[in-house]
Order: sequence, then structure tokens, then C-alpha cells
Amino acid sequence: MVMQFMSDNAARVHPQVWAAMQAADAPDSPYDNDALSRRLDAVFSDLFGRPATVLWTATGTSANCLALAPMVQPHGGVVCHREAHIEMDEAGAPGFYLHGAKLMLAEGEGAKLTPDAIRAVIDPIRDDVHQVQPHAISITQASEYGCSFRPDEVAAIGALAQERGLRLHMDGARFANAVAFLGCTPDEACGSGAVDALSFGCVKNGGMSAEAIVFFREGMADMVRYRRKRAGHLQSKGRFLAAQVIAMVEGGLWLDNARAANAAAQELGSACGERLMYPVEANELFVKMSAAERDALRRQGFSFYDWGTDAARLVTAWSSEPAHVTALALAIAAL
Amino acid sequence: MVMQFMSDNAARVHPQVWAAMQAADAPDSPYDNDALSRRLDAVFSDLFGRPATVLWTATGTSANCLALAPMVQPHGGVVCHREAHIEMDEAGAPGFYLHGAKLMLAEGEGAKLTPDAIRAVIDPIRDDVHQVQPHAISITQASEYGCSFRPDEVAAIGALAQERGLRLHMDGARFANAVAFLGCTPDEACGSGAVDALSFGCVKNGGMSAEAIVFFREGMADMVRYRRKRAGHLQSKGRFLAAQVIAMVEGGLWLDNARAANAAAQELGSACGERLMYPVEANELFVKMSAAERDALRRQGFSFYDWGTDAARLVTAWSSEPAHVTALALAIAAL
Amino acid sequence: MVMQFMSDNAARVHPQVWAAMQAADAPDSPYDNDALSRRLDAVFSDLFGRPATVLWTATGTSANCLALAPMVQPHGGVVCHREAHIEMDEAGAPGFYLHGAKLMLAEGEGAKLTPDAIRAVIDPIRDDVHQVQPHAISITQASEYGCSFRPDEVAAIGALAQERGLRLHMDGARFANAVAFLGCTPDEACGSGAVDALSFGCVKNGGMSAEAIVFFREGMADMVRYRRKRAGHLQSKGRFLAAQVIAMVEGGLWLDNARAANAAAQELGSACGERLMYPVEANELFVKMSAAERDALRRQGFSFYDWGTDAARLVTAWSSEPAHVTALALAIAAL
Amino acid sequence: MVMQFMSDNAARVHPQVWAAMQAADAPDSPYDNDALSRRLDAVFSDLFGRPATVLWTATGTSANCLALAPMVQPHGGVVCHREAHIEMDEAGAPGFYLHGAKLMLAEGEGAKLTPDAIRAVIDPIRDDVHQVQPHAISITQASEYGCSFRPDEVAAIGALAQERGLRLHMDGARFANAVAFLGCTPDEACGSGAVDALSFGCVKNGGMSAEAIVFFREGMADMVRYRRKRAGHLQSKGRFLAAQVIAMVEGGLWLDNARAANAAAQELGSACGERLMYPVEANELFVKMSAAERDALRRQGFSFYDWGTDAARLVTAWSSEPAHVTALALAIAAL
Repeated sequence: MVMQFMSDNAARVHPQVWAAMQAADAPDSPYDNDALSRRLDAVFSDLFGRPATVLWTATGTSANCLALAPMVQPHGGVVCHREAHIEMDEAGAPGFYLHGAKLMLAEGEGAKLTPDAIRAVIDPIRDDVHQVQPHAISITQASEYGCSFRPDEVAAIGALAQERGLRLHMDGARFANAVAFLGCTPDEACGSGAVDALSFGCVKNGGMSAEAIVFFREGMADMVRYRRKRAGHLQSKGRFLAAQVIAMVEGGLWLDNARAANAAAQELGSACGERLMYPVEANELFVKMSAAERDALRRQGFSFYDWGTDAARLVTAWSSEPAHVTALALAIAAL
Repeated sequence: MVMQFMSDNAARVHPQVWAAMQAADAPDSPYDNDALSRRLDAVFSDLFGRPATVLWTATGTSANCLALAPMVQPHGGVVCHREAHIEMDEAGAPGFYLHGAKLMLAEGEGAKLTPDAIRAVIDPIRDDVHQVQPHAISITQASEYGCSFRPDEVAAIGALAQERGLRLHMDGARFANAVAFLGCTPDEACGSGAVDALSFGCVKNGGMSAEAIVFFREGMADMVRYRRKRAGHLQSKGRFLAAQVIAMVEGGLWLDNARAANAAAQELGSACGERLMYPVEANELFVKMSAAERDALRRQGFSFYDWGTDAARLVTAWSSEPAHVTALALAIAAL
Repeated sequence: MVMQFMSDNAARVHPQVWAAMQAADAPDSPYDNDALSRRLDAVFSDLFGRPATVLWTATGTSANCLALAPMVQPHGGVVCHREAHIEMDEAGAPGFYLHGAKLMLAEGEGAKLTPDAIRAVIDPIRDDVHQVQPHAISITQASEYGCSFRPDEVAAIGALAQERGLRLHMDGARFANAVAFLGCTPDEACGSGAVDALSFGCVKNGGMSAEAIVFFREGMADMVRYRRKRAGHLQSKGRFLAAQVIAMVEGGLWLDNARAANAAAQELGSACGERLMYPVEANELFVKMSAAERDALRRQGFSFYDWGTDAARLVTAWSSEPAHVTALALAIAAL
Repeated sequence: MVMQFMSDNAARVHPQVWAAMQAADAPDSPYDNDALSRRLDAVFSDLFGRPATVLWTATGTSANCLALAPMVQPHGGVVCHREAHIEMDEAGAPGFYLHGAKLMLAEGEGAKLTPDAIRAVIDPIRDDVHQVQPHAISITQASEYGCSFRPDEVAAIGALAQERGLRLHMDGARFANAVAFLGCTPDEACGSGAVDALSFGCVKNGGMSAEAIVFFREGMADMVRYRRKRAGHLQSKGRFLAAQVIAMVEGGLWLDNARAANAAAQELGSACGERLMYPVEANELFVKMSAAERDALRRQGFSFYDWGTDAARLVTAWSSEPAHVTALALAIAAL
């Protein structure tokens, strides 16, 4: 038997999501003119306590790139962390969707950007036509190393963005885990209005094939409706995507699932102690561990990714079996 | 009560597709490394009786554009019908996916291309760098007007393509309906090897969110794997797309569903008689009908699109209620 | 000896242009920070009697595409004539520069668009995300068939553009010839403010390698400065381009040269009589002429392009030898 | 009086180049069908001692990007130095010309890549579709810091490229200076066949507006002919560009000019001594110098760029006045 700590990507679909999809299986208007898709704006405006316009899409990559589309001209740039998903794991999708715009790579502990790190990238850029000028900033909540931005940290980046005339995007593939960890409101996790557009993840959190792009800045969604269709992401039976998203948000399933995943991560984190490379602030752990130790764990049935040569990445999910989690915690403690 | 003849896009998902998706809901490798996705090549090679490499994607638009990607350089062109879906209804997606390549519009009765129509477009192109040169041809089986290419018609276009060094793509959003109508093998419906890549539609035919891109020419799929990810179409829980496609193909559901839709279309077609603008060779009917007549039908509960000012478009689906079909046939006959 | 009526492209460089270039051969700031480049705005604002911002570029193709860049989003379209240079002879450059935007082809006698012809293209476009929406209109002054838009014709197109929220570009590769023919002011030839950006041609009119992009709408040039560099069109010794443009405009060389070319065309036109396919309103003639007749002319030393199978295209230039022109006129009359 | 050490970009055009341009001022075929353009292949095949196909273009940026076009798919990457011109000073042109391909930044002393530095970038790239895969390498000869690759260094990079299936591009904006410094043949400076395409610079070396793209790998130029036109870089009076390039190469003007510039740089270098940040191997010097010292030099009439806060960049040109050079050398020595 395999005990899975590979990725929340590979987890099961939550029963409430299934139920919502099946309830949506009646003829309705195609594309996003169905009743469910038309409810998304209201659902998210309610969730964030501010007006939002929301489009569904199937993947985090398309969510990120479509969110950035109205922020960045083809001749501009996006400041992001050197290890951001858009830089490392999206196969150059930003270059495609943004028609050649440039990712401008910044440093930052725990894959978190800071105003200083952003300034270190953009301040040396000469204000002339020979150099690509920054148009937007993209941060990830929680970060690629499972670290959550505190509300004031997001707000500080938002203030810098405003000062420099840049737009701010948040990749929230694990936004739920961040909010659950922070114990704040969703709006606070976005710096209370600092973010122009948020990729709100569902797939890693119990969904099947739907993410939500949440636009807080007026006008952006209007343009992205065209870009989504142009990218082949306007599914004809869109009601099944809307159903997933609504099932996640309404009733709080998104937070329940994230809390379950986070709790599992905390249990593992306690067992890891000094081995932890970053604080555990979501559902990912990066754990120093020799090859021999990783082998030992794998022989006991645990499945996970290596992280470089001297560490492991452990990811929990809403569906992580408590018994597997405890077993892994004990196994790590016993190493 | 509404009796739906709007679009096969809006139809329900077939129970066997649901069952297959639910059977896929166990942890497996993410993206397309799961057991189902890895079976697709074999399933389609078997179906077509020739080696095929197959990638799933969520939409017909992305299927068409990804299929064309290895055929057309950014500075080249794709010959297609003036009313082809890629020209009329995909929001410029070919321009996006092909990085500015040009659609070269040809004429043809019933939205079907012919070798002569293609030559009329490409022969006047000067062989110099000032004019965009054709790189590929795209045809639609069945066509936008519900007309099916006979096997020898596809083969003739394939022969022209080969003669001119062009690749041949087939948009098969309603490929099943064409094959069901033609009573030939899937391979024959592709001109027995004339087609380099086929967009094999499922969504209009009882699927939810999966189409198959079937590559018959070696090497193409290898490149498109990168392009699919880059376009944000590599879903992390890809097993749910593979499950849909396999459910459609294995056991013949795709043909059963298409036959049901086609039979409904034939019943309507018989009632339309002289009103028919094109022969009924799939599941779409284009029917001359005054505004008053359309109003009369709508008052009786039938839902469908206007087609210009003097006609209606009627689309049947696998799930068209026989009683609704008969009712509509009678209502049209009674006009 | 060859008597050239092939193309104004192939003509010599005017001595005043040479002189200006040589005068510019002293060290100055690179790119467009030199004294000459910085004078362009003033020179053209003066010429048009309204504020203009002007960038040089080396070719008509880049001028057209850069002028369109701030008008058209990648998911939008440009209405132009079916025989417009941007459609027929620029190798797909608009698709490249506009990142996949679509050219929407309209009809029109003499390759001239009309409000009705434009409406015939844009009115059927459904206002939904499945169809590419028009963002701009591009017209050619004088047209590809040597026909000049009257000031009120341009103004009428401008009014339509404004009504529909579209931008208006004018390809003025032979703008000088149109103005010389019309006997109006440059501003009037642009519909007195109807045009947002004009590609002002010099190369066909005695220049060597410089065209001017004249922006009448504020803000556009700011964006295009980046796009020009990004397209590799910001030459480091830009002063030599600015020198050419200024030499053409100041002192009226542009009109003198155009008048010379037009006069030659008129002389030929008079000899052609009924053979003319279009009125002669610039420096191009399209002349019905059998293959045998064309052979006869060529045997007498005249060089020109065939236009299809039954006609010839004759182009005069500022440098057309009067003796050659008269000889050709006589030869045509004698056919 | 200003003594210019700002940039070789800003220098004058060499009299022999002027003479060649003027000699070209007779009607000939437009674009690149003229007699001069058709000679380029032979001229460069002779220069390099191996078959070459050559296209002119106006700028170094377009030369680099067009040279890379046949080497890199839109979903691929180009390894280059973190301070390469294509990364730092071309406004994102590679992203435009390569349709979103990615620049992969490597380290290297003196802005020179090494096989180890390249491996450090490409070895960690996972061989999966989530990460952009490298398709080509681009090096600069002489480098952005005026350092020249030795023949065996280029050959070693070429061997790595071949081993990994990558193409190799050389940005030779100052190729002449490198060859003059190295005292080797042009072919040796390209690693004796290691380079697939070379951007051969003329503008910084006494030209006006022409660079040559030299393709050593068969087939590449055929594709780039279309891309050049599509980028608006196919000038209609191309003979004036061909004339410049031929004037530079035939008779050895390119080396004479480079030697003059290099000699001036050596004279300055000797005066700089310990101040030099990099060895002087072309015509650029990077010199540690306080703000006060730079002020002192400027007050004496010398013009140059700051390089960061603690250094100056000095560039010599073919036309640097010997008296100015000596004066600057003395002034630096006297600091």
C-alpha cells in the first residue's frame, strides 16, 4: 500500500464537488451563460467583501496567465520570485499568454517576495526603451515553499506596486491553505484590496478541474473573457466548472479542506523539528533528509518527491489519511 | 417546458462517462502519467488501425490549435473554409496558438473544401517572401453545415496536400456523427491515412470536458506535449479527461451516441423537405424558415438558433428526447 | 537600355536626401536622441497644423505595423481592404507585430474602403467572445490601385470609426502622391483629424531607408517607442533616418517629387484611354493589355510588372526620365 | 570641444562605406534581388572559407533575433550570459521574435560563457514538459565586457552544443574587434565551424545601417528570409545595405577599422593599469574610477558613460581621434 505525500494535485475529488457537478448535469446555456457561472461574481464578492468579477478556468497555469494578461503589455515585464511557479513550472506559459513579456526574477526567503527584493530588481532598470520595463508583480500565497504572506506583507507590496504604477497578481493555487493558516479573512490575505487579480485555486484542494480567476480591478475581466476563449479555455459545458468552484466556496468547504491539509502538515512538521527548511505555514514541508533516510521512508510505503539531493518535499491534502500522517510523523521522528 | 435543439454543446453528460470519471477518482500520478492517459495511444491505434499518439485537452478550440501547432510556422498559413470554426468561432485562437499565422479562406458548398477550392486559394500566392505561404490545410468532418466528406473526398485533399508539401488537419468536433452517417471505418473517414492530425470530439457527443487530439504523423505529439502545457491545458488530474475519452471510444459509445443524434436529425430532415439548405449528413440542420414560422415553433416550446434572417439551425444530440424530436418534426411539417 | 516602370521602390535616392544624410555624418547621440530626430515632432506638427509625435522607421511594413500596435489588442481585428498591402504583401507582419490579431477583409472599388464596405464586415460580427471584434480600420492613401481618398471620404470613415470606437490608421506609402493629386493640405488628406496614425512614406518618393510614423493621438507614440526597439527598428545611427525624412518634408521636396511622378503618370494615362482599369490619381496605372502587347512594349525596352494575365502595372517615380515617359506614352498609343 | 568615448554606435560612417553606397545609387531590382545583395553569399563564403548564406538587416537587435529564429521554438529557451545584449539591451526583442521563448541566464567572468556555466544552467532543467527546455546557446564575440573568446573556447562551447542537440549563435556586434585582437581567421574566431549563425556587425565599425546575418548551417537562411520580411526588415532599396556590408568586408576595411579602434583601446588600457576591471581584448574598457575622477575627466572634455557608481565605460571607435585618445590616456594616468 502506498501512502501518498507526493502532491495535492493527485488527490481525490471531494464528494461535495462530485455532488455539485452531478446536480449541474441538466441542459443549460453553453459556455458561461449558465445559471451557475452567472452566480460566481456574487459568490466571490460576498466572500471577499468587495466587488469581484470571476471567471473559471481549468488550470492554475491558465488562471495565472489570464490574470496577468490585462496587467502586462507584450513589451513589459512581471516581477516574480526566482522559484515562482510561473517561472519554474509552467513551461513558459507566461511568455505565450503575454506575447513575449519577460519574467523578472527576484530573490526572497521562503520564495516570498518583499518590497526590498522587488526594488532590487526594478530599481536598476534604466528608464529607456532598451530595457524591458516592469508592468506587474506576481506573488504566491502560500509560496512555493509553503510560506504564507502576512496581510501587512501583502499590503506593503501593494503599496510599492501602486507607487510604481504596477499591477499586483496573486497566484493562489494554495490560497485556501494560506487563509486557513493565517486565520484572517480572504480579503486580508490579499492585503485588503492590494491585489488586482487572484488565481483562486480549487484543484489542489478537492476540486477536479476548475480554478477561479478573481478580478478586483474593474475592466480586467472584460478583456480576459476574450483572452480565455482565444486560449481555448472557454469550455462549452462550463456549468461543471462553475459548480466545482461554488461547491468549494459556499458552505466553506475550501477552508475545511485546507484546514485538514494544514493540520496534517503541522503534525508532520512537529515531527520534523530541526529538519524543516522553512516554517510550515500551509500544506507543504521541505525537510532535510539524506538519501538513505528517504529510502528508509519509502521502504515503509511513503511516497514523496526528492527536493534536490539532501531533502524531501512532503505535501498533505484534504484527503490525507490521518493514519498515514501519523505513521509518517512517527517514521520521521524515528529516523 | 423547453425542447432543446440549440446545440449539442449544451447536452447532458452520458451516464457511462460519469461512471468512468468516478471510477478514476483514486490517487494516481498527476498530469498525464496516470494509467488511463497512458492507455490512449493504444485505444486509438486500435480504433484507427494505424499507429496513433493521442493527447487529451478540454476543448475543441485547444484541440484544433494544438493539432495545427506542429504543422504551421508562425510565418505560414492554414487553408480552411470561410466558415470553418477556427475562422468564425474560436476568437482568433489560431492566431494566438500559431503565433500570428494566417488563415487562408476558401469557398466550398456546404462548408466543405475541395481540391479545386484549395487550389483557387493557394495557386495565386506568389512564391516570394512578401506573401504568406500555405503550410497546412484544415477541413471539418462533419462540416459546419453538417455535411460529411466521403472517404475519397478526404483522400483527394490529402493527395493535394502531399503534392504541395502541406499538412492536413481534420477538425472532428462531430467526427462521430460523420462516421455514423458514412457507415465507414474511422480510418476511412480520414481518407485512409490522409490526415496528419485529427481533433476527435467528445464533448458534443456525451462527454463533459475532454477531446482527443489524434496524431497520425510521428513526432508531432512530442512537440505538442510542450505546447499543451504551455497553453495551460495540461490538467493535473488528467485521469478524468482520459477516462471520458476512453469511455466514449471503448465499447463504441461514441458511435451509439452519434447514431442516436443522427437518427433524430434524419427524422427532422424528412419533415423539412424542400426547406433544407444542405443535405442532412450528421446532426445539424439548416432550415429555411421565416421569422413568423420560427416564432410559431418557439411558442410551441422549441428552442433553437436563428441562422441569418431566413433560416433556423437545429441541432440534435445523443440525448435528444424522441418525443421532442417527433413533436418538432410534426410542427415543422405543419408550418 | 531599360526604361523602368517597375516600381518606385527601385528608384534612385534624391540628391537632397543624399546631401542631408551626409550633413548628418558627425558624431551625435545614438538612437533617436540626436538633434535631427528630436526635430521631427515639430516638423510634422507644422506640416499638418496639429500636434503630432513622429518616429522614424526603415520600412513601410514596420511603419504600418508599429502604427497599428497601440490600436489593436492581440485578440482584436483590423478592417482593411482585401488587397491592402498589409494583407497582400507584408508576409504576415501584422500577425507578428499585433501578436495574432486578425485582418478583416473588406471590398471596395479601386482598393478603397467605404463606410458601407466597412459596415458590411463589422456589422455581422456577433458581440460575443467567440468572434474576433474589430479594434481598428486601416486605409491606404493613395490606394493599392493608385486611387486617392477625397478628404470627405476619409472624414466619413473617421466618423464611422469614432461611432464604433475604432481607431483609424492610414498607410501613406504614397501619401505624397495622393496629396499632390488632391491639391489639398496634408491634414485634409487625413480627413482633417480623422486619422489616429499615418505611415508617411519617403522611400518610394526619393528617400533611401526612412519612413515616418506620424501619431496624431496622444499617448500612442510613447508605447510605440518600446515596440520599435523591441522590433529591432531603433537604429543606432538614427540621425541618418531623421535626416532623410526632414529633407523630404522641409522645403517641400516630398510634394515636388510626387508631382513629378504624378505628372508622368498623367501623361501615360492620357495615352491609355479606355485601357485604364482605374482612374489615375497618383503614380500607378493599371492598364488592360494583352500578353502580345506587353511583349511588344518590352521589346522596345520598357520594364514593368504584369498584372494578372490581361493587364500591366506601370509605376512612375520622381526620377522617371521624361523622355522615357513620353516614349512609353507613344508606344502605348501606338499599340 | 567634446572628445567622444561614449559609444562606437555614435561614430561617423567611413568614407569607403559612403562611396559604396553612392555607387549603388542606380535603379536595380528592389529588396534583395539586386546585384550587390546577390553577391553576399560569395563574399562571406570566401571570408570564412566555408559555405555561408548571408542576409543583411539594419540593426544588431534584428540580426540577433533573426539568427535565433530558426534555432529556437516558441516553447524553447536560449542560454545566454546574464549580461548579454539580448537580455539587457534589446527591449525584449528575443521574446518578440521567438514568440515567447525564454532567455536562460548563465554566469561567466567578463560576460563570457563557458561550458561549465552553460551546464550549470541546463543540467538542473528537468526533462519534462513543465520546464522550458533549452534549444540554443548565444555567445557574444567580443563579449559585453570587451573580452574575446579564444578559438578553442568557442569550439568547446560548440562541442557542448552538439552533444546536447543545441544550436549555437554568436552575437558579433564587435566580431571585427575580436578577430583583430585574436589575430586569427574569422572562421577560427567562430570555433572553426562551431557556430550555426553569426550576427556580423558593421554599424559600430564604420557602417551606417547594415549588419550581416551569416548562416553556416544549411536551410536556416531560407526560413529567415520570410521572417525578415515579416519583421519589416526587408528594405526595398536593399542594395544600400549590401553595399555597406561589402564595402566593409572586401578589401579588409572591417579589420582595418577594428584594429584602429583596438589600438586606441590598448593605449587607454595601458594608462589604466590596475583600474581595469577586465582585460582589454577589443575596443571597450571598464575602468574603476570614482565619481570625482569621472567629473575631472569630463571637465577636460571627455565624454563617456558611467558604469555603475564606481566605474566608467570607455569605448573607442575606428574614428577615435589619436590626439583625443592620447589626451585621455594621459588624463587617466594623471588622476
